[in-house]
Order: sequence, then structure tokens, then C-alpha cells
Amino acid sequence: MDRFTGTIEKINSLMSAHCKSTSLILDTAVQDLIEGGGKRLRPLVLILAGRFGEYNEEKLLSMATGIELLHMATLVHDDIIDEARLRRGRITAQEKFGNDVAVFVGDYLLTRSYSLFIDNLSQHSLLKLNKVVKMVCIGEIRQYEEKYNLDLSLLDYFKRIRRKTALLFAISSYIGAYEAGVRGKNLYHLYKFSLEMGMAFQIQDDLLDFIGKEDRTGKENNQDLTAGIYTLPLILLLRNEKYGQKTREVLEKKDLTIEDIALIQEMIRESGVLDLSRGYAERFVERARKNLAFLPDNVAKKDIEFILNLQVQRQK
Amino acid sequence: MDRFTGTIEKINSLMSAHCKSTSLILDTAVQDLIEGGGKRLRPLVLILAGRFGEYNEEKLLSMATGIELLHMATLVHDDIIDEARLRRGRITAQEKFGNDVAVFVGDYLLTRSYSLFIDNLSQHSLLKLNKVVKMVCIGEIRQYEEKYNLDLSLLDYFKRIRRKTALLFAISSYIGAYEAGVRGKNLYHLYKFSLEMGMAFQIQDDLLDFIGKEDRTGKENNQDLTAGIYTLPLILLLRNEKYGQKTREVLEKKDLTIEDIALIQEMIRESGVLDLSRGYAERFVERARKNLAFLPDNVAKKDIEFILNLQVQRQK
Repeated sequence: MDRFTGTIEKINSLMSAHCKSTSLILDTAVQDLIEGGGKRLRPLVLILAGRFGEYNEEKLLSMATGIELLHMATLVHDDIIDEARLRRGRITAQEKFGNDVAVFVGDYLLTRSYSLFIDNLSQHSLLKLNKVVKMVCIGEIRQYEEKYNLDLSLLDYFKRIRRKTALLFAISSYIGAYEAGVRGKNLYHLYKFSLEMGMAFQIQDDLLDFIGKEDRTGKENNQDLTAGIYTLPLILLLRNEKYGQKTREVLEKKDLTIEDIALIQEMIRESGVLDLSRGYAERFVERARKNLAFLPDNVAKKDIEFILNLQVQRQK
Repeated sequence: MDRFTGTIEKINSLMSAHCKSTSLILDTAVQDLIEGGGKRLRPLVLILAGRFGEYNEEKLLSMATGIELLHMATLVHDDIIDEARLRRGRITAQEKFGNDVAVFVGDYLLTRSYSLFIDNLSQHSLLKLNKVVKMVCIGEIRQYEEKYNLDLSLLDYFKRIRRKTALLFAISSYIGAYEAGVRGKNLYHLYKFSLEMGMAFQIQDDLLDFIGKEDRTGKENNQDLTAGIYTLPLILLLRNEKYGQKTREVLEKKDLTIEDIALIQEMIRESGVLDLSRGYAERFVERARKNLAFLPDNVAKKDIEFILNLQVQRQK
């Protein structure tokens, strides 16, 4: 990611500047989030998509800053839901200050992102973006509704990660390109490219919840599993001829012991569902790649391809 | 409030229609909130302010619906903070479904309100409104920072309720009027009128936390007190010559017993701080009234005056 260091630094300092307030708690929480890192994939994708048109660098950076702030807002609110102690290896805002503040830190980030969007987006993009934020909320609530549901289908899962994750990637590309005047097929393929990549990204994320090294991902393993959120590997395991019944029996208890988790981990490794899941991620990457193929060759395309290739190998 | 029944019913059904989703939990939570009642003061003020210009009824109703949804979003998020069990006499969304869902129910309401704003507001109003939402967040976080602070000044308190409450009243008037083409002095006085009324409204709300009948307010008494949120009567009590020192001693314990609360209640009644607080509320009402005086006489003005007069007598 070295090739993007300069841009990422710019986005980080724009985020800091744009979120400065008169509240010490707020500034501490926001600074923690920014310094906590993250790959800044959504803003990068937004900027690169904009390069396919007549772009204004400053405007692209503002929109990119907005997208990352929006993403951060969802992370902060997500952590309240998950009661996750760790996010990117750091103590979460909600651990530090309690739910009390985390809710409004997230809301604050949301309004700061919207201020950048209202300043820089056409009404068309603004409405489209706002609709995506709505879908993210619905995705999160759906995920709650589907907790501990042993009969989740692959389609349910794909629908959920589309809403929860992929659409935000897709809209990042879309607004970057649209506001730079890109229209027609190029706009369509940039949107679709990001959507498919976002799907691959989330599948990979869900895989890492089972097999990631905690020191690398900065998150505790098995978080989703213990919270009753069943992702691709587990859904496949539940459908596995050999292990399905056993998995169902273990999960029916809801409150999993350490031994239960170890047993599920073992079945996941032995059943081959990890490779199967990886296969799905790769298929989404291929679909993303196909959309890229329709786009004109330029430097931005090479950069986008580079980001896409990271998705299947990433370990954090 | 009978004269507004028709309008309130329209707003309620617009809220329902605009928030319909594919999620049962979401629809239940939203429907609960709508049926939970509320005085719909902000949307009414918005509509009445719009009547001072060349208004479009449908557009006013859409914006009014947006303001009430926005207000509801802050209530939902507020309840996560307060861990309030009751809101308007009903079990809160967060009690029913847990924090998990309440966060995103609030976010969902927020995006639904913004969709109405993006559709109906000029960029000027949109930016101004978004800024107010930011101030509400800062107000809430400030309130958290100021918890258990025995040295809170009156100015701190007024700043807080301005951000937390009054600005949202003010912006309701503003956008209603602005989007109906009202400019200059009329716009200014409508804005100021609502700001001052919002201050009075919040002071009255804080008074009711001490003396409200629970069956009427639908909230438990002493909620703020036990959460360490010190409002006007208590700030005045802390500065009272006779009771100040004793109050400070009791509050320094932070964890208040039932006896502590009874003692504080007694001192509040005997010290006269309730009347003093009411006096402040009345002064804000007078300031609001002065702004009204500059406005042209019409039916809307009579209605606005009616709403203003309710503020000092209201018991819920």
C-alpha cells in the first residue's frame, strides 16, 4: 500500500481538521479512531474512480474524507452492538467512555461526513448515498434479526453483506466517478466493480474472524460466532453432509463453552469450508475484475487492480 | 392542542409511510415510537413558520415529518445513553430489543429524515440543519463531560440546553420559513422566537424531572439527578446560601440512596429554587413573545402564540 501513503496521510489530516471540536472527549475519541489506522480502502476507491473523469483533486479528497468518516461512524455504532472490546487492536471508544458517549461520537462523525457531502455532492449523489446509509442500517438490524438462526441460506448471507458492506464500497466509486462527470458504461462498471470487491472484502473479513491472527487483525477471533452471527464458513458447515448435524447440535446451546468453540474450529478446518469460502471470495474478485476490463486503461485502473488483488491475500 | 389534531395525524401517517421497511423489528420499533405520542411541537412550529411565506403545504408537511423523525432519532440514541427504561410511558426500543438494535433504529430514523431534507431543502438550509444536528451531538457529549460536576455555572447549563434542545426548535422555524421564501427580519424573529421557546421548553422539562407526576409525564422522576446530570433547580440549589453546602455533601457521594434523593427533593421544595427556575422559563417565554411581536398578524401567529403559552403551564 506504499503507493498510497501520501493520499492516506492527506485524508487523515483532513479528517482531524474537519472533526476538531470544543470537547476534549470528542477530540480524543476521534483522534484515537484516526490513529487506530485502517486501510482507507473506501476513500482510495472513491478517488481512483474519480480519476476516470474530469476530476478536481480537492473535491475528491473532501468526498473521500467524508466516506471514511461515514465508515468510522458505522464502526463506532457497530462496536456498541457487538460490545467488542477490541477494534483494530485498540480499546474501542465505547470501552473507554461507555456507551453513553460512543453513540453520539458516532452521530457526530455522521454529521461531519454529511457536511462534506452536502458541500460537495449533487442532489442526485446525495440521495443515492443517503439511501446506502439507510441500507447499512437495515443490514445491521437484519443481522440482529438473524442471530442464532441455524437455517440461514447463502442468499440471506449475501444479501446481508451486500447491505452491510458492499454497497458502501459501491457508492464510494459511484460518487467519486459521478461528481467527476463519468457517466454511462464507465460509471456502471466502476460501481459494479466496487460492489463485487466489497463482497469479496466482507467474505475475507468473515474468514479472518475464524482464522485471523489476533495480533495481525487487531480483533479477537470468533467474535461473530460467540455473538450468534453466523457467517459464510459456518453457514457452509451447517450444510456439510458430515459435520452439519454435529454443528447444529453444538450451536443450539447458544451459550458456547471454550470447548464448543474449539470443536467448531476443528470442524471448520477439517470440513474444507474455509477453502469453499475462499472460493466464493475469489469468484467475487473475478466478477470485479471483469468489470474492470471494460474500463479504459490508465494509471487509476492499475491502482484499482492493485487494491483488488490485495483482497484475496489480505490477512488483516 | 385540539386545533392541531388534523395536522398531527397527517404527520404521523407520513412518518409511518416514510419509514416502512422489510424488517419486522424496525417496523415495530418505529411504530411504537410514533404511537408513543409526543406533542409534535417541532413539526408544528416548522409548519406555522412556513405560513409566514409563500408556502407549499405538501412540502411543509414533508419537512415537518423530517424534523420529527430527526427528533425521534435523538430520543432513541438518548435512551441508550440514559439507559432510561421509560420514555413517554412506554418501554423504550432499547429495553425491548437491546442496545444492539436501538443504535441502528436511531441511525435509520436519521437517514429517513435526511432523505426528506435532501428532497425538500435548499443547500443553504441543509447545511444549516446539519450543523444543528452536529451541535446536538456536541451538547450530548458535553452533558456527559459535565456529569457529577458540582461547579456547573448557569451559563454552562444554558449553553447545554441551547445545543441539546433549543437549536432544534430554532432550525425548525428557520427551514419552514426559509423554504417558504421568508427572509430578513421576519426570518430572524421566527428563528429567535423558537430558540427562546426551546430554552423555556427544556427548563420546564428539567423542572418536571423533579416534580412531574410519572403517570402524566410518562417518565420516571429524578432520572437526571441519579445519572449525575445536574439541571437548573439543582444548580440553583448548589448556589443557595442555606442549602448549598448540604447539597454538595450529599451529591459528592455520587451513588445516591433513596434517602439522599428524598433529602434533595425536600431541599429543592423548601429553598424556592423551583420558583426561581420557573422564573427563568418565564423570562425565556417573554423573550420569545417579544420576537413574536415583530411579526405580521395572521392566523399562524395566533397558533404560534397558543403553543408558546402552553410552555409555562405544561405538566408533561
